[in-house]
Amino acid sequence: MMMMRAGLHAVRAFPSFSRSPSGHSVSGVLQIQGFGTQWKSPSAFQSLRPFSKVSLWPFNTQPKDFSEPNDSWSPEMRKMYDKYFALCEVEAEGGERETEGGEKKRAPWRKLPSYNRALKHATGGVYLSKVIQTKARLFTRNIEEEGAAFEYVVFMNKQEKRCVCIFQSGHLLEGPPGHVHGGAIATMMDSVTGTMTGYLSGPVVTANLNINYRSPIPLGTVVLIHSALDRVEGRKTFATCKVTSIDESKLHTEATEDVTVAFQYSSARLQ
Amino acid sequence: MMMMRAGLHAVRAFPSFSRSPSGHSVSGVLQIQGFGTQWKSPSAFQSLRPFSKVSLWPFNTQPKDFSEPNDSWSPEMRKMYDKYFALCEVEAEGGERETEGGEKKRAPWRKLPSYNRALKHATGGVYLSKVIQTKARLFTRNIEEEGAAFEYVVFMNKQEKRCVCIFQSGHLLEGPPGHVHGGAIATMMDSVTGTMTGYLSGPVVTANLNINYRSPIPLGTVVLIHSALDRVEGRKTFATCKVTSIDESKLHTEATEDVTVAFQYSSARLQ
Repeated sequence: MMMMRAGLHAVRAFPSFSRSPSGHSVSGVLQIQGFGTQWKSPSAFQSLRPFSKVSLWPFNTQPKDFSEPNDSWSPEMRKMYDKYFALCEVEAEGGERETEGGEKKRAPWRKLPSYNRALKHATGGVYLSKVIQTKARLFTRNIEEEGAAFEYVVFMNKQEKRCVCIFQSGHLLEGPPGHVHGGAIATMMDSVTGTMTGYLSGPVVTANLNINYRSPIPLGTVVLIHSALDRVEGRKTFATCKVTSIDESKLHTEATEDVTVAFQYSSARLQ
Repeated sequence: MMMMRAGLHAVRAFPSFSRSPSGHSVSGVLQIQGFGTQWKSPSAFQSLRPFSKVSLWPFNTQPKDFSEPNDSWSPEMRKMYDKYFALCEVEAEGGERETEGGEKKRAPWRKLPSYNRALKHATGGVYLSKVIQTKARLFTRNIEEEGAAFEYVVFMNKQEKRCVCIFQSGHLLEGPPGHVHGGAIATMMDSVTGTMTGYLSGPVVTANLNINYRSPIPLGTVVLIHSALDRVEGRKTFATCKVTSIDESKLHTEATEDVTVAFQYSSARLQ
């Protein structure tokens, strides 16, 4: 059902594959968060964790996280990454940091992983992705060559209901000579906004995307994509998005996007 | 100057490389239509043709036209192509057909060529594309494998100021599992609308793109993208665009787009 909706962003991006010391995943339960019937209510959702810690699957279950730094990243890209990564919670400790008083405190920012299929964001989805339409690849992660197309990483601030994506455009994204294609910009804005609203609300479908192009983006440059939750009206979530230079002095593109939450109860989590 | 604008569509798609019997281009003049200073007025534009018929360039100057049928096309794609191609003017005869009375008459439809860089649409651009940012590729034509990403062909009806694009989505365009990414749809709508307005008005830049997603497009299916000129207000051109099933019974996506004509005089050609 859910998988039949347009623009669905399966981005409730739990790091649900906890690594064993050997580096292999030790959770192997086929449980599709957001797609299955398990996800009944916000409280039930919170407690969703793989119930088996022993992998029953013969596959290497650790999908590649495309948002990790690689050699194609420019110094600017790496610098911005380091800046936001320093604000992040420590993943291995479940997002908690010890304060002076010995209490645990959540860091406001989190780096979201990025796979080459939306399916893989769901628990168990990595297995499904080997079975269902195995050749299919996420549009923004469909090119093997590092740096050739979309290089990006999304940092989420759950408290402030906003996220920042650091995006470096590769030579395969050309539109006007020497500049990024308007469709590639639209793709990134849709992806980032969908990722954010999906993270906050559960799976969503894009209903409307309204983009104003202000200033072109030269191929190869690094820009920031800021997406923020605007308001929630019933099942509809409204968000804004803008693309700026890394020092945020120049506005390249701005957009509004509204998405429909696929499950009624999900929007309650935002209020 | 022109090349510095966002979302520029260099799509005044003259078949400016007339083939010699050996299949090689015999026109080799570096004359960038729409970018150069040659293009002074509509009447001057009409008479723009390469002035030398002898190639001075050592390169093979015939760029690959990606809109030609290939083995990855499904029977539906091929059927739609044949339908619109039958309505086209015969390219070799300069778009003219002989009527019964012996008079020449223009066919209403024309198939537009599609290269892997916008530069190549300009006369002489094929040479420039070998010199300037040689690795850059048009976003919609950046994948070598036939059928893997965007397979499309645009047919233009100049009299009616509209065009139809036949689009077959490949497995690398996935967004929601099994369906086309919203960004890939936005990319095609921007490209097709930009192509049409560019064809009618000369080089344009996309100013606004407003998309409503109605119904998802399953990966691998063939759809039609209809784009039509709405109105012209000064330098601004407004167009509408919709994506439908091939029998036009189902509406997948609809959009409005407005573009700014890069040269003031160009819009006069529409009136």
